[in-house]
Amino acid sequence: MGMEKNGNAEGKLSEYLYPPEILKRLDFSKSPAKFHPKISAVDPGEDWMVVRPLQRSDYDKGFLQLLSQLTSVGNITRKQYDDRFTKMKHSGGYYVTVIEDTRINKLIGAATLTIEQKFIHNCSLRGRLEDVVVNDTYRGKQLGKLIVVTVSLLAQELGCYKMSLDCKDKLIKFYETLGYKMEPGNSNAMNMRYVKPLY
Amino acid sequence: MGMEKNGNAEGKLSEYLYPPEILKRLDFSKSPAKFHPKISAVDPGEDWMVVRPLQRSDYDKGFLQLLSQLTSVGNITRKQYDDRFTKMKHSGGYYVTVIEDTRINKLIGAATLTIEQKFIHNCSLRGRLEDVVVNDTYRGKQLGKLIVVTVSLLAQELGCYKMSLDCKDKLIKFYETLGYKMEPGNSNAMNMRYVKPLY
Ligand SMILES: CC(C)(COP(=O)(O)OP(=O)(O)OC[C@H]1O[C@@H](n2cnc3c(N)ncnc32)[C@H](O)[C@@H]1OP(=O)(O)O)[C@@H](O)C(=O)NCCC(=O)NCCS
Ligand SMILES: CC(C)(COP(=O)(O)OP(=O)(O)OC[C@H]1O[C@@H](n2cnc3c(N)ncnc32)[C@H](O)[C@@H]1OP(=O)(O)O)[C@@H](O)C(=O)NCCC(=O)NCCS
Repeated sequence: MGMEKNGNAEGKLSEYLYPPEILKRLDFSKSPAKFHPKISAVDPGEDWMVVRPLQRSDYDKGFLQLLSQLTSVGNITRKQYDDRFTKMKHSGGYYVTVIEDTRINKLIGAATLTIEQKFIHNCSLRGRLEDVVVNDTYRGKQLGKLIVVTVSLLAQELGCYKMSLDCKDKLIKFYETLGYKMEPGNSNAMNMRYVKPLY
Repeated sequence: MGMEKNGNAEGKLSEYLYPPEILKRLDFSKSPAKFHPKISAVDPGEDWMVVRPLQRSDYDKGFLQLLSQLTSVGNITRKQYDDRFTKMKHSGGYYVTVIEDTRINKLIGAATLTIEQKFIHNCSLRGRLEDVVVNDTYRGKQLGKLIVVTVSLLAQELGCYKMSLDCKDKLIKFYETLGYKMEPGNSNAMNMRYVKPLY
């Protein structure tokens, strides 16, 4: 997992954050999600739609503008984006996954799987779902389901024993239809916010 | 953060998972936690007690036995422990922190901070609190508070904008006294469990 060096690919704009081939191995029939019509990462239903790992070039395909529909992003320069991409790739465990509308070369959906290495449960791996967003003009067309199911199957494929997420009340039902559950007595997400980080 | 190579230290039993000096910089007066008597990571109240990063040698100091008071650990060989330690160190972002009783060379408390790199909020960092445990014969002596406050201040010191945790209902009050909050309408932790990982 993620220990590989980037080698020749380093810095190329087409460079992927993780190997795109993994997405071909996902079996959408294993997900409890109901798709009408049936779609999957490999076959997202429209020939102009592609589900793939984040690429270094996605700075120019509206990745940050897409994220800004989820929360504040700030002014991230190309260099900052590039450095973060490089650090994520070197660390391993970062699976930022996107949907592109190839007619206009713009990203229209994104979700991140992060994988945490643990000692408990026989040195297990735990997945987390983060930063899910679909461009507002594309919502209600199963793309939210598509991107979340994609990274959820990816977590299983990569050997995670479970996948976790935190969400707002109004999204509980959405995630329940995809196989996520509240666990009675053990479903509390708490946060501490640091007003001013030291650096 | 965590990109450094291990260099000469690699494989040495005294090797730390992260630089122990960072713990000296933590200012316990910044935490809302109330300690009676006052203690801190540098000055834990007893001369036989040390708060420090996990070491490679902690396989022999009961680290896995301590974790087994939290949840199932399984039979982890020395090689598996060693490999996981190495992978965590190479990835960066893993801050497993322990309390040792140096009279008996045993670990009596542990907590893990993991740091996730993000694009949102100006390429921010998000901390997570994981796998908190105090040996049962040492409970009720402020050690739970001590280890949680230590890694919470560490997250701020390392530049995280927030720190998150999931917990059982009965621990909400404990974490509230340490500065963690449930956020109204946005405090749901959901999980998907994979019965059989593929490998
Ligand atoms: C949440 C989000 C990703 C869903 O994307 P989407 O493409 O519209 O979702 P889908 O078309 O796949 O909808 C799947 C189902 O969930 C339902 N659903 C979607 N968003 C919902 C919401 N906010 N509340 C309740 N139900 C919702 C849909 O009605 C649909 O139900 P159906 O299958 O019975 O028809 C999208 O609304 C979004 O980007 N929101 C803003 C960012 C956000 O809140 N992210 C999640 C942070 S926890
Ligand atoms: C939770 C745990 C780490 C606390 O350790 P500890 O050393 O006993 O805690 P402290 O002595 O620092 O106690 C701090 C305060 O929290 C309270 N507290 C501790 N555990 C509590 C619990 N399970 N429920 C409610 N309150 C609790 C104590 O009474 C004390 O209150 P006070 O400051 O008003 O006297 C320890 O009980 C433990 O290891 N439990 C098993 C593993 C576990 O549940 N981990 C957390 C997973 S989310």
